[in-house]
Amino acid sequence: MNEIFSKGRERYLLKNKEVEKGCPSMIERFFEARNVVVIGVSHNPKKVGHVIFRNLVRKFVGRVCGVNQGTKPILGRKLYTSIADAKNVELAVVAVKAEKVPKVVEGCGKVGIKNVIVISGGFSELGEEGKKLEQELLKICKKHGIRLLGPNTLGIYVPKYGLDTTFLSDEKICKPRHGKVAILTQSGAIGCLLLDMLGKANVGVSKFISYGNAIDVNATELLEFLGKDKDTGVIVWFFEGVKSRRFAEVLQEVSKKKSIIVLKGGKTKEGSRAASSHTASMAGDYELFRAMFKQYGVLEAENLEELLDYVKAFATQPLPTGRKVCILTDAGGFGVLASDVCQKLGLELKLPSKRLIEKLSKVMPRHIVLSNPLDVTGDADAERYETCLKEVVKEYDAILLIMLFQLPMLGYEVVERVARVWRKVKKPIVICSHGSRQEVFQKFEACGIPVYPSPERAVKALAALYQRFEFVSSKGKIC
Amino acid sequence: MNEIFSKGRERYLLKNKEVEKGCPSMIERFFEARNVVVIGVSHNPKKVGHVIFRNLVRKFVGRVCGVNQGTKPILGRKLYTSIADAKNVELAVVAVKAEKVPKVVEGCGKVGIKNVIVISGGFSELGEEGKKLEQELLKICKKHGIRLLGPNTLGIYVPKYGLDTTFLSDEKICKPRHGKVAILTQSGAIGCLLLDMLGKANVGVSKFISYGNAIDVNATELLEFLGKDKDTGVIVWFFEGVKSRRFAEVLQEVSKKKSIIVLKGGKTKEGSRAASSHTASMAGDYELFRAMFKQYGVLEAENLEELLDYVKAFATQPLPTGRKVCILTDAGGFGVLASDVCQKLGLELKLPSKRLIEKLSKVMPRHIVLSNPLDVTGDADAERYETCLKEVVKEYDAILLIMLFQLPMLGYEVVERVARVWRKVKKPIVICSHGSRQEVFQKFEACGIPVYPSPERAVKALAALYQRFEFVSSKGKIC
Repeated sequence: MNEIFSKGRERYLLKNKEVEKGCPSMIERFFEARNVVVIGVSHNPKKVGHVIFRNLVRKFVGRVCGVNQGTKPILGRKLYTSIADAKNVELAVVAVKAEKVPKVVEGCGKVGIKNVIVISGGFSELGEEGKKLEQELLKICKKHGIRLLGPNTLGIYVPKYGLDTTFLSDEKICKPRHGKVAILTQSGAIGCLLLDMLGKANVGVSKFISYGNAIDVNATELLEFLGKDKDTGVIVWFFEGVKSRRFAEVLQEVSKKKSIIVLKGGKTKEGSRAASSHTASMAGDYELFRAMFKQYGVLEAENLEELLDYVKAFATQPLPTGRKVCILTDAGGFGVLASDVCQKLGLELKLPSKRLIEKLSKVMPRHIVLSNPLDVTGDADAERYETCLKEVVKEYDAILLIMLFQLPMLGYEVVERVARVWRKVKKPIVICSHGSRQEVFQKFEACGIPVYPSPERAVKALAALYQRFEFVSSKGKIC
Repeated sequence: MNEIFSKGRERYLLKNKEVEKGCPSMIERFFEARNVVVIGVSHNPKKVGHVIFRNLVRKFVGRVCGVNQGTKPILGRKLYTSIADAKNVELAVVAVKAEKVPKVVEGCGKVGIKNVIVISGGFSELGEEGKKLEQELLKICKKHGIRLLGPNTLGIYVPKYGLDTTFLSDEKICKPRHGKVAILTQSGAIGCLLLDMLGKANVGVSKFISYGNAIDVNATELLEFLGKDKDTGVIVWFFEGVKSRRFAEVLQEVSKKKSIIVLKGGKTKEGSRAASSHTASMAGDYELFRAMFKQYGVLEAENLEELLDYVKAFATQPLPTGRKVCILTDAGGFGVLASDVCQKLGLELKLPSKRLIEKLSKVMPRHIVLSNPLDVTGDADAERYETCLKEVVKEYDAILLIMLFQLPMLGYEVVERVARVWRKVKKPIVICSHGSRQEVFQKFEACGIPVYPSPERAVKALAALYQRFEFVSSKGKIC
């Protein structure tokens, strides 16, 4: 443990030297802080302040200290009774009751801390009284030149440095490893779910940012930061409303460089009402957002599942360079459903070439259907899939593999056979499979090939990849 | 094992006496047969003929025998070398190569078997040659008065009697227990998936019927049979096309009595082409089907997942008698998403009454949001949910419970608390929850309360229940 810690730390300090060469922006400093204090550390292991402290003590490669009213150590760490005693702190994470927050932030300002995350809820989302608290907080920030993330937020998680300010226990959720997807979310709950799901699907995350009520640092600034962040390749964003005027301009710029996938909450009247008592934001006119997303090449998910489905594809697959899809299936009915969706979403089910048919008919049993869908039928084994796949990738832009592991002949060795072909061709391959046994899906996703539980969802993911290709190629840029 | 077998058998013979009082139709006899033969039993445990025989030997409460070319016993059972030696057989399950099927069915006819299931593929789905084979087969059936199910099918599964003619091994799929949902499917693969998913979700099945190419017994007859079947309360149907002219009339009649949930494959040009090489059916004009479903109160699922989502709700929940839904959530962002879908689907998010607000504000902490969504916030425990739920069910027609088990305070004891309230009120309750830990979802579903991984899917299921209520109440009939 200590070794990993010091190794991580070494890497980390090196990285920070690089940062010092440039001039990290005030936003960047949240994610590059090496000296963090948690204010409001609790002895009760279920309480927010305890979980945050524990997450940092266990994983953070930088230094972490805690502030608490008592002096009894927590998790073997000595605590300060006042923020005034903590030296060289760059980032403060505040988890005290709402009414105490202004005083605490004032204290941070006095010792020169410039980045503060306020986890505590109980502000404008509860009405007038909370709004006043927020105004007070803002004044304090301006006075001391503090940038504040929150309140009413989970804060940030940077897997690369183990910098985890969320109050989500590692025992209860499966947090993702380091990778290229950034999660930006207005809602902590949705963020928590996204973390858990991406962790489970073996999708790596560069930065997780929950911004909550966003009284100071807002979504537009964070988007702009992620647009420049070298570790981030894909941006996933859940929001209910935005406040900044620069929003449209920033969105357009970032989308030119990186794939952005959004989900908007509060699309209807009822939803907007719910949103306002949630993070106290105005949800705005949904139709305007929709038009903007379309024009700027931002991919909009209809719902949470679609969002996750898209992320899985964008995080792992290259963009297809054309719209010719081959469906390789062992189940006729699934092939039919997948064909419907391909047609609906503008993907082309080109029939196999004469050459391909000749080649495969020599080695395949008579009863397989050499069309598109290419039906390898219910008695297909791993070898039959591999043989077909190897030929098919040569003349298609993307492949949907449908596999029923309920059938007697298909074994898990198909995973390695498919992965081998995929690693060579650099074309998108997605799997559709479903059933009570999850272990084979995990094997596929551990190899970097996403699995979808229905033909519809698998085809939608392919169509989204193609849509992005069309956007970037029409702009003369490749992502 | 033996005891269970003989007990089941006793029950079974009793049931058959009842049947004998009436006059079971030729279709009914498939499901009530007490003496079954499998033709084409193989020694290879992966082969179709072996798996079918094993399923029946292990589970069927009636008598089962096998026919095979050799005489060596399989699974400890003596086999016949010819169907002519098998006495008193009521149902034959055929799993030999396509070209041998006509001769085998002829043999069945000669010994007086009137019900035959042909599992084998390799008929019209492969083209002209196969079509001729089917014609030949039909002639033989007519000559002997045989009713034939298939070919190219999984056959049937009747959990009540352990009558399982599918070649799906119990080790590979999680088959459902006895219950009130009938599955009718043109595609074996989709049927296999439906079985597995319903088994996993603890939804019971009355009859599973895969009808494949349907050269004799067709979907219309089977629908009609299920409409009268006492064990069946909900019918789930996947189809690509239909052949019978009586179809519309039968569908209308059955839908008056029982909830029918359909999914159609082959909706588009591409899909239809794929369908024709799959089960050799014409997919027909989708718009016509769509209009028919709407008029007859048949619920159409957009895709496979929606189908499963609807089944879970219809199999377990009563119909709501109004459209007032309450969303009880510990996650604001999820409440917002759910509100959007309620509004879109015509469910009403009535605000809580003054009485309800007064009652709850006395016992709840100040920071919970007493609106609709009713946000019990992220620190809610099982007791807080139960307290709110008990009050809320009094003034709403249906409840959506959103629960994030990733949050520190919420434990699994909430399942029993929710189930207790639900058992008393007889109103629909569905759960939205998601994450890497599946065990709590299984606990809910074991209690009969369905769990959905997203707010959208949960609300859609509630809306479908309400839609059915509207249909049956407008017809003056209650399902």
